[in-house]
Amino acid sequence: MTPDEQPRTAIVTCMDARLDAAGLLDLWPEAVHVIRNAGARATGDALRSLAASCAMGTRRVLVVHHTDCAMAAHTDEEIRRQLPPEAGRDVDFLTIADPDEALRQDVEAIGRSGLLPAGTEVQGFVYDLEARVAREVPVR
Amino acid sequence: MTPDEQPRTAIVTCMDARLDAAGLLDLWPEAVHVIRNAGARATGDALRSLAASCAMGTRRVLVVHHTDCAMAAHTDEEIRRQLPPEAGRDVDFLTIADPDEALRQDVEAIGRSGLLPAGTEVQGFVYDLEARVAREVPVR
Repeated sequence: MTPDEQPRTAIVTCMDARLDAAGLLDLWPEAVHVIRNAGARATGDALRSLAASCAMGTRRVLVVHHTDCAMAAHTDEEIRRQLPPEAGRDVDFLTIADPDEALRQDVEAIGRSGLLPAGTEVQGFVYDLEARVAREVPVR
Repeated sequence: MTPDEQPRTAIVTCMDARLDAAGLLDLWPEAVHVIRNAGARATGDALRSLAASCAMGTRRVLVVHHTDCAMAAHTDEEIRRQLPPEAGRDVDFLTIADPDEALRQDVEAIGRSGLLPAGTEVQGFVYDLEARVAREVPVR
């Protein structure tokens, strides 16, 4: 398909501002919604936003993790140690131990959420911040 | 302060891709993290991401709602009607009835979360997609 024929697309990606400079929307100009959180995880809020996006016509979801992600370089406990005492004790920070496996889990969680219209495509990519290319990660 | 003297900043904004084209990072080049969801709401996931951002050095949070937001143009029930039958029954879509009030609530929710280091500044803005300017909304 040429870009013009791509369905309306939502991207779930990480909060790291370096991803903007590299131009995600240059890669996927058909994206109408961009959801971002720490680690590009398939959280309840990402699902809320994706469902709202699909209600507005989106039929393709791209989950885009990236190289050099701080959420894969730190553990939950390391994050808590940098916060005020007692802060974040009850927060699961969703840090990433195995990047490709975390991406597959996120793609699968979105696919089986039951919130998206039938036929909505969900794909996972790792964006290389240096090379500025995205590699698709096959889901089981 | 000149931009160079601004503290490391995180932006919470809406998933609407038109906000990217208008260049939030041109307005706030000191932003290192950009969190985006439907409506730019202060959800649990936004707080998780902000806490992780603060653990990495962020000391200023900007909540940026925008004009012509689809989440202010639709109700939760209108969104559910566009989804598969039964989908989203248990999801609070956090649609917006009063834009300025919703923004104030989001700024306040972040400020009183207890997750951010003392002295972290939280401000609210409405970004005008046509004029490409941001108006600060004072918090009570």
